Amino acid sequence: MAKTTLYQEGSMQMLQEKLLEGTITVKELMEHGNYGIGTGQGINGELIILDGTAYHIPSQSKPTIADPEMTVPFANVHQGDFHFFGTYQDINVSELLRDVKQKIRGGNYFFSVLIKGHFKDVKTRSADGAKKPYPSLSKIAEGQHEFEKEDVDGQFIAYHAPKVFQGVTVAGFHGHFIDDAHDMGGHALSANIDKANVYVQKIDYFEEHLPLDNDDFVKANLEKLDDLNSAIEKAEG
Amino acid sequence: MAKTTLYQEGSMQMLQEKLLEGTITVKELMEHGNYGIGTGQGINGELIILDGTAYHIPSQSKPTIADPEMTVPFANVHQGDFHFFGTYQDINVSELLRDVKQKIRGGNYFFSVLIKGHFKDVKTRSADGAKKPYPSLSKIAEGQHEFEKEDVDGQFIAYHAPKVFQGVTVAGFHGHFIDDAHDMGGHALSANIDKANVYVQKIDYFEEHLPLDNDDFVKANLEKLDDLNSAIEKAEG
Repeated sequence: MAKTTLYQEGSMQMLQEKLLEGTITVKELMEHGNYGIGTGQGINGELIILDGTAYHIPSQSKPTIADPEMTVPFANVHQGDFHFFGTYQDINVSELLRDVKQKIRGGNYFFSVLIKGHFKDVKTRSADGAKKPYPSLSKIAEGQHEFEKEDVDGQFIAYHAPKVFQGVTVAGFHGHFIDDAHDMGGHALSANIDKANVYVQKIDYFEEHLPLDNDDFVKANLEKLDDLNSAIEKAEG
Repeated sequence: MAKTTLYQEGSMQMLQEKLLEGTITVKELMEHGNYGIGTGQGINGELIILDGTAYHIPSQSKPTIADPEMTVPFANVHQGDFHFFGTYQDINVSELLRDVKQKIRGGNYFFSVLIKGHFKDVKTRSADGAKKPYPSLSKIAEGQHEFEKEDVDGQFIAYHAPKVFQGVTVAGFHGHFIDDAHDMGGHALSANIDKANVYVQKIDYFEEHLPLDNDDFVKANLEKLDDLNSAIEKAEG
């Protein structure tokens, strides 16, 4: 297989520890890939990158093309080389992802799943961007906005990470959605597929950037890991 | 600062789960850097890479130049661009590493420490290479060989990884030693410095390869993490 690298800016642990400053621009991020997901500084909305275009999904308005100078504290991107995996009908996205994982024996490695098709219903969320000093993710979540749409064409992209990477990133699946009309999207809370084509790309390299020139990152106490797993499951579940 | 990438082949979790097949050659590994540490297939000895030369430290004979075709299940390498940090005297290596970590506020990121000088005493270990089906690291450790030398000139290289990377790699410090006479070396168990120059390089990118074309890796159960932390602390402490 061709070499595929999943690039990651920052870590999930950093988000949990209120390190929400943007440390890379969208433009720089896209030098590492043309597909991906992320969030803006202070959890200012959600990002979804599809075929070289980055969309920003703010909490209070419709999706737009992301400003290339917008900064990002956390993102996953890769160079798309998806392979057609199959057509699925009448299935919940969580079940679909579990089915893909099982069929490709994907538990121990990173891979990306791209779903294009018609959804019966989709529920997403996006948060307002907080200002420094940044609050906790749970505080930010209190003010998040949820969007729902039925009978909608759209694209869903998810990354799978092995369990041992919990904290470094989100273990298991982490996915974002945008509808084809660019009317709604965000971090996917639930999605039911009517009929969709599914594409899979296995990933053999994981590359992470830690922002050593960010003083808040260097000075933070990231040595306490006790509640990290449950906090991430709560925030990203 | 210039961009520095720490390349890693495989994971510590894989070693713990008896996935000891070499998945990269020494020659390929050195395309990712000219300094590093690692081990051979089946934990066949220890590797230390210094200024572009890879030394293999077998369990039953003296260090040699590593065969470029020798395969490696786990290694860390990077392109050396060390900066002189200071001269230390009469200090244990563990204390020295803690001092460096504290002074550079290095707890949250990767960095490498290179120590060149005169050691009062050094104790290292190296294991015999096991054959497939591979035994556990603790089983292999029962047959490991320990080497001790006093009043010795040599080089010690260590990597520091943040706590959240436990399992992905070894959290904290992980260091290998070789004496200048190439008489002994290996995974460092203890070392007391008489006088040595210390060089430090901060690392802002971490890149890991997972061997997706290795069937044993794909089929292994890497989802049980409960004892991983204590197992790694026991094996690498």
